[in-house]
Parts: sequence; C-alpha cells; structure tokens
Amino acid sequence: MNTTFDAQNSIRAETLMSEPTSSKTELSELGEFGLIRRLTENIVLKNESTLKGVGDDCAVLSFKDKKVVVTTDLLTEGVHFNLMYVPLRHLGYKAVTVNLSDVYAMNAIPKQITVSIAVSSKMSVEALDELYSGIYLACDRYGVDLVGGDTTTSLTGLLISVTAIGEADQQDLVYRNGAKDTDLLCVTGDLGGAYMGLQLLERENEVFKVNPKMVPQFTGYDYILERQLKPEARKDIPLLFKELGIKPTSMIDISDGLSSEILHLCTQSEVGCRLYEDRLLYDNQTRKMAAELNINPLVAALNGGEDYELLFTLPVADNDKIRNHPDISVIGYITPMNEGVNLITAGVGQAIPLQAQGWNPLKE
Amino acid sequence: MNTTFDAQNSIRAETLMSEPTSSKTELSELGEFGLIRRLTENIVLKNESTLKGVGDDCAVLSFKDKKVVVTTDLLTEGVHFNLMYVPLRHLGYKAVTVNLSDVYAMNAIPKQITVSIAVSSKMSVEALDELYSGIYLACDRYGVDLVGGDTTTSLTGLLISVTAIGEADQQDLVYRNGAKDTDLLCVTGDLGGAYMGLQLLERENEVFKVNPKMVPQFTGYDYILERQLKPEARKDIPLLFKELGIKPTSMIDISDGLSSEILHLCTQSEVGCRLYEDRLLYDNQTRKMAAELNINPLVAALNGGEDYELLFTLPVADNDKIRNHPDISVIGYITPMNEGVNLITAGVGQAIPLQAQGWNPLKE
Repeated sequence: MNTTFDAQNSIRAETLMSEPTSSKTELSELGEFGLIRRLTENIVLKNESTLKGVGDDCAVLSFKDKKVVVTTDLLTEGVHFNLMYVPLRHLGYKAVTVNLSDVYAMNAIPKQITVSIAVSSKMSVEALDELYSGIYLACDRYGVDLVGGDTTTSLTGLLISVTAIGEADQQDLVYRNGAKDTDLLCVTGDLGGAYMGLQLLERENEVFKVNPKMVPQFTGYDYILERQLKPEARKDIPLLFKELGIKPTSMIDISDGLSSEILHLCTQSEVGCRLYEDRLLYDNQTRKMAAELNINPLVAALNGGEDYELLFTLPVADNDKIRNHPDISVIGYITPMNEGVNLITAGVGQAIPLQAQGWNPLKE
Repeated sequence: MNTTFDAQNSIRAETLMSEPTSSKTELSELGEFGLIRRLTENIVLKNESTLKGVGDDCAVLSFKDKKVVVTTDLLTEGVHFNLMYVPLRHLGYKAVTVNLSDVYAMNAIPKQITVSIAVSSKMSVEALDELYSGIYLACDRYGVDLVGGDTTTSLTGLLISVTAIGEADQQDLVYRNGAKDTDLLCVTGDLGGAYMGLQLLERENEVFKVNPKMVPQFTGYDYILERQLKPEARKDIPLLFKELGIKPTSMIDISDGLSSEILHLCTQSEVGCRLYEDRLLYDNQTRKMAAELNINPLVAALNGGEDYELLFTLPVADNDKIRNHPDISVIGYITPMNEGVNLITAGVGQAIPLQAQGWNPLKE
C-alpha cells in the first residue's frame, strides 16, 4: 500500500476521522481468526432486526412483516480505486455507502451489511484497521450492523465485496419500472462533482509521479474531493418522501452517470423522456474544476457517475409538494416511449438522443 | 485461463455437466450490461420468498415469520483455486455449495444467493458461461434463486464472492454455542477426502508441468476428486433431523478441518471434548491415496478441511435415534471445559490436545 501521496489532510472529510498509526504488524502474526477477532471485537449491534451478528456459520436476522432488500457491490484495486491517492479509511467508508445508496434507491432502510475482503499478505494489520475504521464509521452514521464477512488473501491487490440488507413496508418499495407518461423526472443534490474530484486527484497524482516533492494543489476543492473519496448515500430522502407525503413512481441511484440511469428507468418503465440541460445543478467547485480542465460539466453529470444521488419520477400532481425544495431538482419529464430518451440542450433547445456511455456533446 | 490440464473428463461429476464450447468472445464486445443480461436472462425464480430478483437496485425478498440467515464467502484465484486443474463449471458449483453448507449448518434452508465476480478482461464470455453453468446447476439442485450480484474486471486473477440467504423457524435454528457436557459429538459422512483429492491434483499438476505429454493418473479416484472439485452441501441433514425428531445442541460445517471446527464448538459452548481417532470414517479412496502419498488420513481429516460435512452435538438421550444411521458417526463426546479438547488415539488411547492448525501427529 502506498499512501505517500496524501490527499487526506486536504479535505474537510478527513477531520471526521482519526490519524493513521505508523506501526506495522504482519497479517501472519494474527492469523485469520485472530484478524477477524481484532476487526470485529468492538461491534455493538444496533438493530432489533439483527438477532445474531458475526461469530457463527451465519448471521441471523428477523424482519417480521417487512420486505427484505439485498444488494451487493465489488470494488477492486486499480479498477475502482487507486491506493496512491485513496486513503483506506475513505475507501472503507465508500465501500459501504455505495451499497447503502442502492437500498435507499428502493425507498428502503438499510439495516445490515456483510464485508468480505481479499488483501495482499503484505498489507499490515494497521492498514486493515484503517480500512475498517471507515467501514465502522459508515455503519455508525447510517445505523447499520456489520453482521458477517470473509477475510482472505489475494495474490495481488485489495478487493472489497459488500452486501447490504435493508427493510421496507411492501407499499413503500419503489422499483425502476413504474415511471409513467407525464411524470416529473427529478434528481436530488448536484451532479458531476465526484467525476471532477477524480479528475483533480488524477491530475495531482500525475504531477506527483513526475515530481514527488510538488505539493498537491487541492485548496478550494474540498467538496468535490469528498464527493469522490467519501461519498454519502441519501438516507434523508426516503424520510423526506414520507414527510412530504409523496412516493416516487420509479427510482434508481446514480452510480454510472445520469445518462445510464435515465436509460435504465426509461427502458424498464417502457417510456421515453425529455431531460433539460439547463435544469441540471452543479456545485461551484464542479464548474470551476471543469473550466480549469476544459471539460463541459454536462459530460461529468451524464457520464461521470459516482454521484450517489437519487433519480426518480413523480406524478405531475405532486409538483407543488416538491417545488423549490432545496434537495430536489425537476430536470425533465416522462414521455411516451416512441418519443425517445432525449437531452434538450440549453439555448437552442435541440433534442439529442441520450446514450448510455461515452457520449460527448463536445464531439457531436 | 489455462485448462489444458484437464481433470474434468476423468471424474464422474463431469458427466453431469455439458462440454465446454471452444469459441471465444471478448468481454468488451458485450460490455457490463450486455454481459449481465447474457449471464442472467434465463433465470426462472423458484422460491415464494423471492419477490424480485436481478434487475433493480436491490432484490426484494419476503420471509414473513421465518428468521433469515446470511453468510458470505470469497474465493480468490491462486489462494482458493488453481485454474490449471479446476474446471470453471466445477468452480462455479463449488462457490455456491460452500456457502449453502453454512446455511445448513444453522439447520436452515437456503433460498437465495448473490454472486459477484471480478475477472481479468482477457477472460472470454464463453469461459464465464462455463462458470455460470456451474453456478446455475448448484442453484437448481439446491433450490436457490440467484437474485443479484456485481460483475467487474480485476487487474489479475478471478475472484468470486457469494452471499447466501436462507430461512428457518426460530425454534429450529442451531448455533455453535449450545453444546453441553455429556452430549454426543457427531459428524456426517466421511472425512479427509477433499484434502486427498487436492493432493492428487497437485501431484498430477506437478507431473504435467514437467512433461505436458504425460496422461494424468486419475483412474479409481473419482470420489476424492469430486470431493475436492465439486463438493456437495448436506441439504439432506436438516430434513433428516426433522424425520428423526432430533435437534442438535450445536452445529458447524467442516470447512477448515475437524480440529478447527471442534475447537470453535467447544470454545463457543465453553466445554471440552474427547474425540476418538478410531471412530473417524474414511472412504477407501481416501485411505488408498493417503497410503500412496504416505500421509496419515487422520491429518487429512483434522487439518485438511473442505469436507463440507456437518459436525454437531446431540443430547446423549438421542443416541438410539441415530445409532447405526449410515450418514451419521458418533465420534466422541462433550466434557466439562476444564478437561480440555482432546484426541484419544487409537490403540493406546493417549489423550492429545487438539490444535487448530498444522498439528501433525506424525511429527509428535
């Protein structure tokens, strides 16, 4: 593990977490069971639905009349993260929140996770402590119990597999396939920040590789760094829906980019939609970084991904309930399927068919 | 992936599976969503408790009054399997059954699995079809639904992460911590076979590396090869317990070797035990291979692991109900904790403290 290129002190998020330790204990000193004990001995179960956590052949859960939702994600080193600039605590935190985001996208409440990791035998016990400190911080903030997992070695890089389990009353569940013609297309928060944070980290990493003495230039970009390194899941949104007395007709979380997610909703709901470029919300840091790197922030929103905001549709009759709500933007509306899935450009109002990946308006 | 060293036609299990195809399609031709579609499009959900499978942010399950059990395992190339001699179909099958084994060890019935894989981008689509044919065969045989997963690339080897979910009535659940003084210590099936199968595969692989023209010598060892390459989980045992009107006081599955599992049961139950060497059952192929390689089969049973049999304790009053049952051996009994956890050797009847790993009676 290489953490010499250290972004962690430059982002606000870091102040929430403690400093890394510098001692090094070999994994082989503890062995598998010793390691599991060390990583799990401080767990205090929080949820009534968790009857038995780590320590038997299985965890035992009880959901009574609730429906149970399950989702799983796999993060691999070199593909999903670069340990050159991703602190392990942030990585642990993110590995959990990206899964919880899928649970909220069902309008459900996450309750348990399992975490399996494969690590190089060269990784130190203290490095794993760091990773797990992020995992447990996420568990605390989101009220979930870590109830199981597996710990093994890999011949090469780090790999993290998280499964999240949540619950919901049947009538609250929201699927991808319920969007109807004339529904409002809505999104929470702002978009493109995680992608611009990644571009910044990649740029500074390239500079660092050429000259390790250069001080990384992160000042003023704490928000987009946090969006990339330590994203939050929108646990407030299912509660907000209850409060506002609304239930989306369809919903999905934004992990692969707005284009891809809109296409999922439209395909599964058998509808089309019109997405308005000028309704998309960007943070100032996203705009500033985009300008600096000569990237259109629209590309970051459509294809960048990892924003972990929620995209959903609402009956047009609910418009008044969300109008001017600071957490929700109406970015378009649903049409019949034969009208296609289109981006309506700002200014001229041209309709351009949305594509799932790699679509670049600068190259049209 | 290298499958030139081909064990698959030499073991009986192979006749249950179809032949591999020889065409090669690049993963990049399909893309992630195309690949997921291909790998999941033929799923037919079997269980009432599966309301929604693959295709949304989460699967949706319903267990009503049943308790829910969850377990997860991670298999990594080069650590848990060697693609030089493990056919992908067998690997897929095994990745599922080792998880189901944990569910049966709770005296529960598995109902759903999620499967996440990380593969080298060089692996072909057809190779993944092979892997999934084994996964689906296990799903069919064990009556479980594949309800979710994640598919990603890894920079190096193959990795499979499976989470299994099962159900049980609360009163049927069996934990590791319920063994009581005087209880019978019992095990299903025979032991040490998977380990001896592995030794055979490793030996033939070494021969092959030196001379690729040598024909591997597998004749007469189909049983131990199957124990290693394509182990079954004991789905019959929870049903048998019902039929016999018994409920174990504690139970665990044998994945790491009998020593390790007995120590888990005894530690968590705060008891000791006496395990009798002469009560352990070996298959003839296990004995024969052990003799050929000059290994004591006891070592294979105690420390070899991967037998996926169930180890459990029963009140002594239930002795008559299991006496002479072909699937169950009584291999010892539980004692007070202060008497320790001991192996009683055959012949002289010496008591030797059991150790979790690497204990080798040949070296005492």
